[in-house]
Amino acid sequence: MINRDLIQKLAEMLKNEHVDALMAAPGHDLVFLLGHSPYLCERFQTLVITAKGEAFYICNRLTEAEAIGFMDGNKVYQWMDSEGFTETVKKAFEEHNLIGKRIAVNGTVRAFNLIKLMETFEFTPVNGKHYLEMTRIIKTPEELENLRISSQIVDKAFEDIIHFIKPGMSEKDIKNELARLCMHYGADAFMGGIVAVDANAANPHYFGDSAIIGEHAVVEMDYGCTYKGMFSDITRTVIVGNATDREKEIYNLVLKANLAGEAAAVNGAWIPDVDMAARKVIEEAGYGYEFNHRLGHGIGYAGHEAPYIHGDNKMHLAPGMAFSCEPGIYIRNEIGVRIEDVVIINEKGETEVLNKCTKELVEIF
Amino acid sequence: MINRDLIQKLAEMLKNEHVDALMAAPGHDLVFLLGHSPYLCERFQTLVITAKGEAFYICNRLTEAEAIGFMDGNKVYQWMDSEGFTETVKKAFEEHNLIGKRIAVNGTVRAFNLIKLMETFEFTPVNGKHYLEMTRIIKTPEELENLRISSQIVDKAFEDIIHFIKPGMSEKDIKNELARLCMHYGADAFMGGIVAVDANAANPHYFGDSAIIGEHAVVEMDYGCTYKGMFSDITRTVIVGNATDREKEIYNLVLKANLAGEAAAVNGAWIPDVDMAARKVIEEAGYGYEFNHRLGHGIGYAGHEAPYIHGDNKMHLAPGMAFSCEPGIYIRNEIGVRIEDVVIINEKGETEVLNKCTKELVEIF
Repeated sequence: MINRDLIQKLAEMLKNEHVDALMAAPGHDLVFLLGHSPYLCERFQTLVITAKGEAFYICNRLTEAEAIGFMDGNKVYQWMDSEGFTETVKKAFEEHNLIGKRIAVNGTVRAFNLIKLMETFEFTPVNGKHYLEMTRIIKTPEELENLRISSQIVDKAFEDIIHFIKPGMSEKDIKNELARLCMHYGADAFMGGIVAVDANAANPHYFGDSAIIGEHAVVEMDYGCTYKGMFSDITRTVIVGNATDREKEIYNLVLKANLAGEAAAVNGAWIPDVDMAARKVIEEAGYGYEFNHRLGHGIGYAGHEAPYIHGDNKMHLAPGMAFSCEPGIYIRNEIGVRIEDVVIINEKGETEVLNKCTKELVEIF
Repeated sequence: MINRDLIQKLAEMLKNEHVDALMAAPGHDLVFLLGHSPYLCERFQTLVITAKGEAFYICNRLTEAEAIGFMDGNKVYQWMDSEGFTETVKKAFEEHNLIGKRIAVNGTVRAFNLIKLMETFEFTPVNGKHYLEMTRIIKTPEELENLRISSQIVDKAFEDIIHFIKPGMSEKDIKNELARLCMHYGADAFMGGIVAVDANAANPHYFGDSAIIGEHAVVEMDYGCTYKGMFSDITRTVIVGNATDREKEIYNLVLKANLAGEAAAVNGAWIPDVDMAARKVIEEAGYGYEFNHRLGHGIGYAGHEAPYIHGDNKMHLAPGMAFSCEPGIYIRNEIGVRIEDVVIINEKGETEVLNKCTKELVEIF
C-alpha cells in the first residue's frame, strides 16, 4: 500500500530540487514506497509523484487491478497492449499540469521508454535516481534488524557450503547449493551470486558457471539474499587443498584491507577516508592497480544503493547507514580474492559488522 | 566473442534508419551479439555499434579485462568508480565522430544514464530496442532446437509438479520446486515464475507467494527457464480437488482459445488475425474484458521479444519465428486461468507447438 509519509517526503525533496514530478518504475524503489514491486516487463508502468504531493499510477491494463489496490484511492491510468502507452501518459500529465515541466526518473525507467515519451510531448528529463536512495539512506530500526537477519542467513549458508565443496564439482553446483541453503535458512529470495574458481575470480563480475573445482583450487563466492525485502551481500574466498604461500600473501592482504576499512567505518567518518583506509593497505603492498573498484556500496531495499563508498562521495557516515566493505585483488590469468561484509552504523552510532562467519583463510580437504 | 556478421547486419540497419550508432547495454541483446552478457549493475556500460560498422565498448574498469576478451581487438574504453562515466563516453564519441548525431539505445539502457549523457554532450536519442529484436526475429535451426529443449525442460517439470502439489503448501513451496525441477532437468537457469492460487490468479502478473493451497484450489503456474540462452515460457492451471462446473466452464473456454490461436498461427498468417482467432472465442462467450492482454510475445534470447502477437502488430508469421500463445480469463476476486505454450514456425514452414505436456484439465487429489 502506498506510503503517504514517504510521498510527502519525496514531494518536499522535488520542490527543493526544482523538479515538478518523479516517475518511479517498478523495482526496489517501489518495494520501498509500496511495500512490494509490481512485476516489470517491457510494458511501461510508473508511479508518478508530483512536487505538490499528488501520486498517480500508469500501467498496462493487466496490472490495473493490482494498482487500484495499492494506490489506495489515488488515480490509476491504464493502457492496452494494442494501443501503446504514450498517449495515456500524455493525458495523465496534461491532467496534472506536467507538460513542459521538469520530470525526474528513478533508476529503473528504461531509456527507450523515456525516448518514446520525449517524442510524444514536451518535458525536461532529470536524473532522480538518488532522490529515492537519499530518502531511505538512514534505515529504520526495523530495517536494520532485517538487514541483520538477512546477513545471518548468508552466514549460515557459508558455514554449510564449506563442508559441501569438493573437487570435481562445477561452479554451478556450488551456486545452486548456496541458493538452496539461503532458501532453507529463511530467505525470501536468493539474489544470485558469483562462484568463480582460480583465474576466473580475477574478473570481479565473472559471469560463467561451468568451470570445475580441481584438487587444488581458489573458490570465490559472492552471493546474497533478501529477508523481508532487505538485501544481504557477502563474499568469501576459500582454498581447496593447502594454500600456497602466494595465495596466503594475497588473501591476508585483502583481509587486512577489509579489517582496515571496517575499523575506519565509524559514525561520522568521511566516506573517502573509509575507502582510502582499505585501499592504502593494498596500494602500499603494490597491488593498487589490481584493486579496481570502490570499497563498497550501500545496501537495503536494493543490493546497491546509497551511500556508495568511494573516494568521490563527499559524505559522512551516520547512524542508520548500511553498506558493504569489499576490497579485492584481481590478478589477470592468475587469481582473484575478495572479502566482503555488510556493515551498519547502528541506532547507537556503533559500527556493527553484520557478517560474523569466519574470515580466516579456510582450507578444504 | 563479438559476432562480426551481426555487427555488419546491424550497421546496415542503422544506415537504413538514418541512425549513426546504437548503444546496447548488457542483457539478452549482448547474449545475442557476444554469446554471453556481462553482469549489469548500476554502473554504466555499453557496446556501441556505428553505422560505419565499427564496434567499441565502454565499461567500468572492473569489467575491462572481460571486455578486452570478448571485443576481440575492438577498442575498450574504461572509467573508474571514483570518476564517473560521462567524460569517458564523451571521449569515445568524439573519437568516433558521434557528437551531435542520432544515437539509438537498446532495451536495457537506463533512462537516468541516458539523461546524464544528454547533459554532458549533444546528441539525439532514438529508440532502437526493436533493431536488435528484428535482427534475430528469424531463429536459426540451432536456436529453434534449443527452444525445443528449453520447452521440454519446463514440460518435464510440469509432469512432476502435479504429483508434488498438496493442500497446505504455499505458493512459494511450489515455485521453489519448479525451480529445482527445471535445474534438475538441465536448465541453465530458472527464469522465475508466478504461482497464483484462486483469486490471486486474477492478477495476470501476480507478485506474491505466501498464499496457502486449500483443500480445493485453482493453481496457476507460469514459469520458464533458459537452455543455451533460449527461453521457455509455459502456463498451466490445475485444480486441487474436483473442478466445479464454473471452473470447468472458464478452463475449457481458455483452452478453446489457446487451441484456436495455435490453429491460426500458420506460416504466413497476419499477426492481428492470430490474436483475434483466440480472442474471438473468449469475446463471444462474454469474457472479452477479462482477457486483458495480448495473445502472446516472441521468445528466444529474451523472455519477451519480437514478434509481439497483438492486434496492432502488422506483420506476417514466417519460418523461424517463435512466440507464445497464452490467452487467459481473469475475473477479479474470483479466478484466473491462463494456458500458455510456445509455438514456432519451423524451417519447413510447419507450426510446432513446443509444449507437449497435457492441457486437459488436471485435478489433483
